[in-house]
Amino acid sequence: MTTPSPSADPSPLFDAAERAAVYRAIALRRDMRHFMPSPPLPDELLERLLQAAHAAPSVGLMQPWRFMRLSSPAWRERLFPIVEAERQRTAAALDERGAEFLRLKVEGLRDCAELLAVVLAPDDGTVFGRLSQPREMAWCSAACAVQNLWLAARAENLGLGWVSMFDPPELARALALPEGAEPLGLLCLGPVPRFYDQPMLEETGWRHARPLREMLMAPPPL
Amino acid sequence: MTTPSPSADPSPLFDAAERAAVYRAIALRRDMRHFMPSPPLPDELLERLLQAAHAAPSVGLMQPWRFMRLSSPAWRERLFPIVEAERQRTAAALDERGAEFLRLKVEGLRDCAELLAVVLAPDDGTVFGRLSQPREMAWCSAACAVQNLWLAARAENLGLGWVSMFDPPELARALALPEGAEPLGLLCLGPVPRFYDQPMLEETGWRHARPLREMLMAPPPL
Repeated sequence: MTTPSPSADPSPLFDAAERAAVYRAIALRRDMRHFMPSPPLPDELLERLLQAAHAAPSVGLMQPWRFMRLSSPAWRERLFPIVEAERQRTAAALDERGAEFLRLKVEGLRDCAELLAVVLAPDDGTVFGRLSQPREMAWCSAACAVQNLWLAARAENLGLGWVSMFDPPELARALALPEGAEPLGLLCLGPVPRFYDQPMLEETGWRHARPLREMLMAPPPL
Repeated sequence: MTTPSPSADPSPLFDAAERAAVYRAIALRRDMRHFMPSPPLPDELLERLLQAAHAAPSVGLMQPWRFMRLSSPAWRERLFPIVEAERQRTAAALDERGAEFLRLKVEGLRDCAELLAVVLAPDDGTVFGRLSQPREMAWCSAACAVQNLWLAARAENLGLGWVSMFDPPELARALALPEGAEPLGLLCLGPVPRFYDQPMLEETGWRHARPLREMLMAPPPL
C-alpha cells in the first residue's frame, strides 16, 4: 500500500450552493452603525470570528494584526470622547456639508455587543514581499483580516462597523500601545436591527457608489 | 393595504450550511504561486469575481480600487522583469537566507490564466472617516476588495496570488498610471494544480504562522 502524495489528493472543491453562500455574504455585508442592545457574545462565537480574521493572508506571513477586546462599559465611555472629538473635527473639515454629516450615525460604540480595537503590530522587519512598500503591505494584510471578520460576522447574522474616526496618537495612548504599534480601527460588532439594503452612506443620500465599469482601467498600448 | 417599510422586512439570514461555506472559503483560501496552464477565464466569470471585489467596504464610500487586465502574453513578458528585479533585490536584502529565498516560487505571472493589476486611484479628497489616516484608510479599502476577490475565487475553485514584489514607480510607469495612482499588487488568477494545505511559506519551511492567542492584546488597566 502506498501513501498518496498530497498533490494526488484533489483540493476540496466548492459546489454551487457553497459558492452562492460566499457570494451572498460578500453582497449582503454592510458597514454597520446601528446595533441592537445585546449581552456580550459567547466566547466561542467571538473566538470563531477572530479565527476567521486570523486566517487572512499576510505579506511574508507577518500576521501584523492584533485585537484588543474593549467591551466593558468603562472602556466604551473612555473611548467615546476620542471618536466624538474626531467627528467634530470631521464636521468642521467638511465645511458646508458639516451639518448634514453631523446628522449621520457614524459609530455604534455604546450600542454594539462587542467593541474591539484592531491594531497594527510594531514592524517585525519582514522583508519578503515588502521591500518597497513596507507600510502599505502591512496595512493591507491587517485589512484583509478585518474583511474576513466582516464576512464571517455577516454569515453569523451579526453586523460589524469599522470606525476610523479617531486621532491615532491619542487612541494609541489610551490603549497603551507599544512603541511602533498603530491603531487601525475600532470595530463595533453585534446583532443589528436590520442590515442596510445599500451602504448606509447611499441610503442616507450622502454619496452614491459607482459601477464596476468605472473601476476598470485599460492598459496603455505596448 | 399598506406597503411594508424596509425595516419591517427581516434582513436575509444565513443558515448553518451557508455559514459553514463562508468559513470554509476563509479557511481554504491560499495565496497561490503555482498555476495550471489555462485559457483566459470566461468574461462572465471574471466579471462576477470583479463584482465581488467591488462589493467591498470603503472609507467614506470612496471605492479607491482600480483593476487593469494584463493577461496578454506581451504584458506578462513586459512585467516579468520588473518582478524578477525586485526578487533579486529581495534576495540581496535577505542576506544569509537569500539563496533559500531564491529557491521559492514567489509569483505565477507567466502561468496563471489571468493577470490583473490592482491600483489605488489618485486621492479624491474624501474626508469622511479619513481625516487622520487618509492613505492608510485608502489602502485598507483596496485590500478589502482584494480579499473579497480572493474568497470569491476560492469559491470558484480558482487560485489567486497577490504579488507585491516590484518597484512601485517602475510599475506605475509601465502601466502609465495617472499622477497620484499607486500600484498595490499584481494579481495572478486561475486554475491551480492543488491548493496548498498550509500557507506556502509554511509548507516550504520558510516561516511558521503563530496562533491566534498571540494576536490578542489585553487592554491596560483603566
